[in-house]
Amino acid sequence: MLVIAVIDRNCLLKDKADVVRFIEKQGLRVQVSETDTESLLAVIGDLPSDLGAALEALPAVLEIRRDSPPYALVSRAHRPDASRVRVRDVHVGGDEIALIAGPCAVENRRVLLSAARAVAAAGASMLRGGAFKPRTSPYSFQGLGSEGLELLAEARDATGLPVVTEVVAPEDVELVAGTADMLQIGSRNMQNFRLLSAVGEQPLPVLLKRGMMATIEELLLAAEYVLAAGNARVILCERGIRTFERATRNTLDICAVPLLKEETHLPVIVDPSHAAGRRELVPALARAAVAAGADGLIIEVHPRPERALSDGRQSLTPGGFERLVGELTAVARAVGRRLHGATPAGVSR
Amino acid sequence: MLVIAVIDRNCLLKDKADVVRFIEKQGLRVQVSETDTESLLAVIGDLPSDLGAALEALPAVLEIRRDSPPYALVSRAHRPDASRVRVRDVHVGGDEIALIAGPCAVENRRVLLSAARAVAAAGASMLRGGAFKPRTSPYSFQGLGSEGLELLAEARDATGLPVVTEVVAPEDVELVAGTADMLQIGSRNMQNFRLLSAVGEQPLPVLLKRGMMATIEELLLAAEYVLAAGNARVILCERGIRTFERATRNTLDICAVPLLKEETHLPVIVDPSHAAGRRELVPALARAAVAAGADGLIIEVHPRPERALSDGRQSLTPGGFERLVGELTAVARAVGRRLHGATPAGVSR
Amino acid sequence: MLVIAVIDRNCLLKDKADVVRFIEKQGLRVQVSETDTESLLAVIGDLPSDLGAALEALPAVLEIRRDSPPYALVSRAHRPDASRVRVRDVHVGGDEIALIAGPCAVENRRVLLSAARAVAAAGASMLRGGAFKPRTSPYSFQGLGSEGLELLAEARDATGLPVVTEVVAPEDVELVAGTADMLQIGSRNMQNFRLLSAVGEQPLPVLLKRGMMATIEELLLAAEYVLAAGNARVILCERGIRTFERATRNTLDICAVPLLKEETHLPVIVDPSHAAGRRELVPALARAAVAAGADGLIIEVHPRPERALSDGRQSLTPGGFERLVGELTAVARAVGRRLHGATPAGVSR
Amino acid sequence: MLVIAVIDRNCLLKDKADVVRFIEKQGLRVQVSETDTESLLAVIGDLPSDLGAALEALPAVLEIRRDSPPYALVSRAHRPDASRVRVRDVHVGGDEIALIAGPCAVENRRVLLSAARAVAAAGASMLRGGAFKPRTSPYSFQGLGSEGLELLAEARDATGLPVVTEVVAPEDVELVAGTADMLQIGSRNMQNFRLLSAVGEQPLPVLLKRGMMATIEELLLAAEYVLAAGNARVILCERGIRTFERATRNTLDICAVPLLKEETHLPVIVDPSHAAGRRELVPALARAAVAAGADGLIIEVHPRPERALSDGRQSLTPGGFERLVGELTAVARAVGRRLHGATPAGVSR
Repeated sequence: MLVIAVIDRNCLLKDKADVVRFIEKQGLRVQVSETDTESLLAVIGDLPSDLGAALEALPAVLEIRRDSPPYALVSRAHRPDASRVRVRDVHVGGDEIALIAGPCAVENRRVLLSAARAVAAAGASMLRGGAFKPRTSPYSFQGLGSEGLELLAEARDATGLPVVTEVVAPEDVELVAGTADMLQIGSRNMQNFRLLSAVGEQPLPVLLKRGMMATIEELLLAAEYVLAAGNARVILCERGIRTFERATRNTLDICAVPLLKEETHLPVIVDPSHAAGRRELVPALARAAVAAGADGLIIEVHPRPERALSDGRQSLTPGGFERLVGELTAVARAVGRRLHGATPAGVSR
Repeated sequence: MLVIAVIDRNCLLKDKADVVRFIEKQGLRVQVSETDTESLLAVIGDLPSDLGAALEALPAVLEIRRDSPPYALVSRAHRPDASRVRVRDVHVGGDEIALIAGPCAVENRRVLLSAARAVAAAGASMLRGGAFKPRTSPYSFQGLGSEGLELLAEARDATGLPVVTEVVAPEDVELVAGTADMLQIGSRNMQNFRLLSAVGEQPLPVLLKRGMMATIEELLLAAEYVLAAGNARVILCERGIRTFERATRNTLDICAVPLLKEETHLPVIVDPSHAAGRRELVPALARAAVAAGADGLIIEVHPRPERALSDGRQSLTPGGFERLVGELTAVARAVGRRLHGATPAGVSR
Repeated sequence: MLVIAVIDRNCLLKDKADVVRFIEKQGLRVQVSETDTESLLAVIGDLPSDLGAALEALPAVLEIRRDSPPYALVSRAHRPDASRVRVRDVHVGGDEIALIAGPCAVENRRVLLSAARAVAAAGASMLRGGAFKPRTSPYSFQGLGSEGLELLAEARDATGLPVVTEVVAPEDVELVAGTADMLQIGSRNMQNFRLLSAVGEQPLPVLLKRGMMATIEELLLAAEYVLAAGNARVILCERGIRTFERATRNTLDICAVPLLKEETHLPVIVDPSHAAGRRELVPALARAAVAAGADGLIIEVHPRPERALSDGRQSLTPGGFERLVGELTAVARAVGRRLHGATPAGVSR
Repeated sequence: MLVIAVIDRNCLLKDKADVVRFIEKQGLRVQVSETDTESLLAVIGDLPSDLGAALEALPAVLEIRRDSPPYALVSRAHRPDASRVRVRDVHVGGDEIALIAGPCAVENRRVLLSAARAVAAAGASMLRGGAFKPRTSPYSFQGLGSEGLELLAEARDATGLPVVTEVVAPEDVELVAGTADMLQIGSRNMQNFRLLSAVGEQPLPVLLKRGMMATIEELLLAAEYVLAAGNARVILCERGIRTFERATRNTLDICAVPLLKEETHLPVIVDPSHAAGRRELVPALARAAVAAGADGLIIEVHPRPERALSDGRQSLTPGGFERLVGELTAVARAVGRRLHGATPAGVSR
């Protein structure tokens, strides 16, 4: 059973250190998660019940929480209000809905800049694009690596859009974090626990995609790894799960949206492109996600999808994306929200 | 490969009979499906190609269609426009979205009438309620049978709502059709082919629910059984599929909506209650379904869900349903549609 | 909670009737299941606890069993010994392993007799063959119907093998039972509860195949329907479930064998043909099933698989079946059993 | 389309370098995989067809293979004979069946040595035990790390059994390889491509477990990553996939055994413990795996399962393992094989 000590963020550093020392003296470990107003110290291991009172009596301790769900830090149980995660000037998790768009992979300068300008013009809030690509086959295009990161930085300069890109190994975190505004953990790495800890130990926000075989609870526990390592700026992403149905690439688990919003304070977005696997189906899934309460979408857009090195079949054209933004503007309004960048009255940019 | 002969509905009976006789003389069988303007005669078996021309030359034959998908009659390939299915005065499949609501099972007179009046007042288009219940255990409540049908008739009289109820065996079709305005085929019977043929041989519209582990293609082929038996008034229903995820009763395959709308001219509705398995999740799924393009919803509503004999956990209260109708009114408008019974301007009753 | 009254089979009819009358007087229903030594009366509905003692005091009642699993009659909880189900002279569920073999469908006289003679010569214990075929498409070959039954009877006369064939609707049970030695309920009908009751109300043994989407518990509850209707001669069949894996037609759930043997006294056999979907994989699955403890196998064999009207891809040739019987003889011996028809010393016919 | 140049292993280093240089001059990459007799150079990217002849003409090139399956190096297409992978003195993939046994995690010195001695005495071929444990929750026991490796080395010294242990991150490969005789890649890391490459760049054999929702093809492509990085000593392991069935922890895909043996030359073993999730079911699955053609088993055994820090529910006791070895000896003989360490006549140690 998990025990959490809530600490005043403004307490003396010495008092906080006393709490950590107290716990470690019992042979237990501590994991710290910082929020805007408090520090949460999760005690890892069994705290004898008679020591709970002594812990609670320490000056820095505001409160002791027992009986947490196994994902204590991401749970709404102790933090009922929704968290907002800021990516540069975009706040995800509030009234506004964020649209992250761009090509699957960074292929070359021309394609990336063209895509970035098109999605920016159509109303995207952030740019996506993979420099490091985890691919099922060793013989597939694996991304441009650091060259791709440089191109992403250039595209950000050209459009003003914050950049989201994937990191696939702990040893790359520092490199990717040098360019990215948000680090993406891909589906296949959702349970790469070493990588989760690594992105938890740096300050950039993290976009954590659900594994195609992972339960909701496992997704929440994966997020817990990031928070337990000290980084509470996590956005969850439903992107379709693997089922017997073969007509779509994956089955979008739309119910994950209300379920996650109920269970955790973290923002939840949806990737309709990987779920559908076919661009014709993307708009319907995107509208459904906003109607179900998603805080954002991440959508593949490519200037010439038929020539894309990966995922071309599921990428929208710039024109298709622009039409979709119009549709989403209306659906967002119907559920009492608005797209990021739109004026409060719902008039899109 | 399927061959279909399209016949003018206004042709002489004798000319139509000539076509059937011609096909049967080759040792082949014919299945007839009637639309508003034409009769479709599907040739079952291999038609030698040299006989195709002779067939086409018969006076009643307007056209010969080859290379049909395996679900020729439900496919959009030969009928690009959406079909509307009329249930009394409710047209499903056009601009209006139909809300079918009511208790899982008909339990007794008081509960049913209370539920029926509540959903009618809140804006439902039709009343649902099971008189014959297929239950996993032989020791569970199996429905009131013909007594339940009488109560449904009474509820219809009291509210004016058309009645949708399940039929579980071919030998019950006549009995249930004596009361129902639409016959429901439940998930467990989606591949009960004898039952599909039986409801295909009578004139009432049919609500066909997807099996919980049936592919989209199998659902379309199940509908084809009904059409091939002569009844083209079929509405398809996505209600969640079985996956590894255990946090919900089933996984709503929201992508089935755009996929089915692409593939077939038949209307498509969604059952968010059986997918979610928990009432708190129903509104988000219902909004998502409308945003994704569904032509209607079928929702469980019970005056006192905690006392329901089945599915209480997933039933909305009348108040919850009323709030949901308000939400759906807004989402429908955002996608250019309106709820049945609402005025064209989008003002709900 | 289920309550079962155990009755001496040799009690006076009048005393037994008293027990039924007592239960029905409480407004409850009774379902009777006969075993070799006792009658089991399952009380359907809630028996007030104070009436339990009165029930137990009735002369014919040997024992009252409370706290049954939901599948009380098929459970091992109250019947620890394995049941044997006799199909003519073949006893399934004891030391011997039964091989049921033959074509998927009865196609014509020549093919059926050729297949029947081949599998008899190779060591099969029973003949399989479908006269009524449930098919996903209305345009597929649906079986020869009653003509097929006549051919099966002829094949039985020619070979001496008992005949197993599928029944797809309650109204056909009498017809099929006129010929068959065991009635098969196919996967798609595992939850056709009306059909389960119908085969439960007649005396022939029933081969109940697991639905491709059904859990172990649902399979046991489906069997419970048959027993609750009065027929305890049920054999369960694992035949593969539907999963995300596309390299095989279905995924054989080999663990269902030890699980079912633990949970129920009914015999359990395996269908490796439908699981594999490809004949090359059938022998390995068949050997695995025997090693895992299956009481028998049902295998598709066709004299010329490449010409079969259905399932040709997964049918063994007669030669392939003969080789497999040799392999199975060895594996059966390794697990302390023998093939039906082999001598106790393990020397095959 | 993949092109592979087969090179004589005994050719001059200079001639081999010429081949690499030739390919790289076309702007393509090369991946080398060494077998006992040849080097396979896979060309990554599109080789213009006119250059194929020039490539084939180079002195070191024995043959050019086109039209490979996407997993060219693991495929049987170009290497029809089964590979044997040697782990110290144990050869996996030939006539003998290897039993790898031991506790889930290395917990402490006493438990590990007790388990190691028990499985050695009962006939195990290798010792398993996790020093680094990937756990779903950050608050679960994560293994003893390098201290666990030291204990494994001690257990090897005490028993003579080669040691198999998991590596969870590229940066740990060198450390773990300092102790292990075979490196295990766990299910959650099957598509951790960086880790696959890392174990491919070192010489120890690799035990690659199938992901719990990975297709057979994805498993083969994961193995291809290891071979493409230069290490052909890979053993594949089926350990159960995730399905809708909840009565077992996972569903053992027994058909993966014959399928993989058909498709690849690599040895295939089975983990019945993680599939079953319950020790009572392990023996049946283990027997089935041997009967289906598996080259080995990896089984969890713990001296006191009820006290295990992880997976106690599915661990056999030493006595249970000993009984199972007896059963497997008989099944192996029935399929013409023997357990490792047994004499050729089939008499177990």
